Amino acid sequence: MSNLTPDQERIVQRISNSFVRQAFVNTIGAELGDVDRGLVDIHLPRNRSLDQQYGFVHGGVLTALADAAAGYAALTVSSADKGVLTTELKVNFLRPASGDKLLAKGRVLKPGRTLSICTGDVFDIQDGVEKHVLTSLVTMMHVDGQTD
Amino acid sequence: MSNLTPDQERIVQRISNSFVRQAFVNTIGAELGDVDRGLVDIHLPRNRSLDQQYGFVHGGVLTALADAAAGYAALTVSSADKGVLTTELKVNFLRPASGDKLLAKGRVLKPGRTLSICTGDVFDIQDGVEKHVLTSLVTMMHVDGQTD
Amino acid sequence: MSNLTPDQERIVQRISNSFVRQAFVNTIGAELGDVDRGLVDIHLPRNRSLDQQYGFVHGGVLTALADAAAGYAALTVSSADKGVLTTELKVNFLRPASGDKLLAKGRVLKPGRTLSICTGDVFDIQDGVEKHVLTSLVTMMHVDGQTD
Amino acid sequence: MSNLTPDQERIVQRISNSFVRQAFVNTIGAELGDVDRGLVDIHLPRNRSLDQQYGFVHGGVLTALADAAAGYAALTVSSADKGVLTTELKVNFLRPASGDKLLAKGRVLKPGRTLSICTGDVFDIQDGVEKHVLTSLVTMMHVDGQTD
Repeated sequence: MSNLTPDQERIVQRISNSFVRQAFVNTIGAELGDVDRGLVDIHLPRNRSLDQQYGFVHGGVLTALADAAAGYAALTVSSADKGVLTTELKVNFLRPASGDKLLAKGRVLKPGRTLSICTGDVFDIQDGVEKHVLTSLVTMMHVDGQTD
Repeated sequence: MSNLTPDQERIVQRISNSFVRQAFVNTIGAELGDVDRGLVDIHLPRNRSLDQQYGFVHGGVLTALADAAAGYAALTVSSADKGVLTTELKVNFLRPASGDKLLAKGRVLKPGRTLSICTGDVFDIQDGVEKHVLTSLVTMMHVDGQTD
Repeated sequence: MSNLTPDQERIVQRISNSFVRQAFVNTIGAELGDVDRGLVDIHLPRNRSLDQQYGFVHGGVLTALADAAAGYAALTVSSADKGVLTTELKVNFLRPASGDKLLAKGRVLKPGRTLSICTGDVFDIQDGVEKHVLTSLVTMMHVDGQTD
Repeated sequence: MSNLTPDQERIVQRISNSFVRQAFVNTIGAELGDVDRGLVDIHLPRNRSLDQQYGFVHGGVLTALADAAAGYAALTVSSADKGVLTTELKVNFLRPASGDKLLAKGRVLKPGRTLSICTGDVFDIQDGVEKHVLTSLVTMMHVDGQTD
């Protein structure tokens, strides 16, 4: 039994179908979380093979999560015949991440037909306490010929 | 027989020692290339487990390479008692990457005691032809208590 | 009669004193708005001499407002013997601005001793309706020898 | 007598015609310099009314110059029926600017039909010596209905 509207169900289906085909996020063990129009969450359990040399999660991993969450958020507002590609992104690292798991929140700030401006924020969770470790602005392009 | 100056040898040694301890870049199969004062190259053979859903290399992987190359370039100009952490980075994706291997070039544009401004550029190589796929500006912070 | 705490009064005084000496913001007619620990608002009445060639406010003006608001927000959390300099900024333009006046909101997202990460958002106001026209992430550096 | 090709003459004419209508750059006293396919230079004599509170040129002015030079560089590669708007920009400040004049160099790094990725670099010139004071990455969008 689902409380989702038909529109929400289509969105969840679309994002889920694409997520399983995005090799890299699956390679690192990321899992899809909440999905709704304009928002996508992604979870990642801590895995020491993704660390940098000081024992924190590698910034490239954090950035990839933010990028993926923002990109899927943009896909929730993309017309059915279009895919999305990241045009550019800007990340600020706020604190090192060394907790048990990560939560990346992608949100559409300004949807558009050609470009959607999104935010991607990553939180590090240790013993139930969330720390904000990364904030980002991401420009997504809605492109023909790449359907998810 | 080496043509490196003692200064260059110390730099190569420092970067190599740190690189083997940066779990994530080794997890994805990256290899250290040229290293000199102010510059570090990193190579990555193509690996389909690092792709996104359209069959191109995931933007997060490209960004991680640029970040790592830029960070190690900053480390070549860092005093021996300091490490470097990425403060922020900004990436523009120029073309999709789908070749045989990737080359990331990190360069120090403006060295500083507290912050060094670096560039990170990634090239996709197919049949010996290089395509510029990513350009970035990266701010690195030289920090106490994190020696490489 | 003031409802400000002594701490708030010191902050308002510090920002006001510096604002009158920041030539450029006064040259373009900007005015200081709300000021509190971690936040500064700046207002700008529309002035056609600040437009670009299509009759919208020039992006450089919008960016300067965001930078100034973010910088002053950082100054509200800076120790008394330090000034702040913008290290880098990243701006996304969300819509063209063509209203009666602009409101720039600078906020400190993550204060620090050396660097403070701030946001700068600009709103275009026409007939009392606010449109979000610019969002930005700004890194401010707290520096010795430049007291405001 | 001109050494310009007809293509170059059309480009110079187009940029010059637009530049005189970009109010803000004229308000601050900027002047058009070299123009060719993919590149535009802009000059600005020092004017203390454009300073910030420490006596350096305001970062917003430097950013506006980089944005304008990058935007006009993009316009040199834009089809005749399209204008360009800045989608986003990212600036790193390398050194304070306090010289006699500024030179902003806009270059197209990757031209495209919808988006062109550009660089904008600003140099501070004092007694004939150039200092690199700002580097930037700028995304320009080629838009219908806004012809220069």
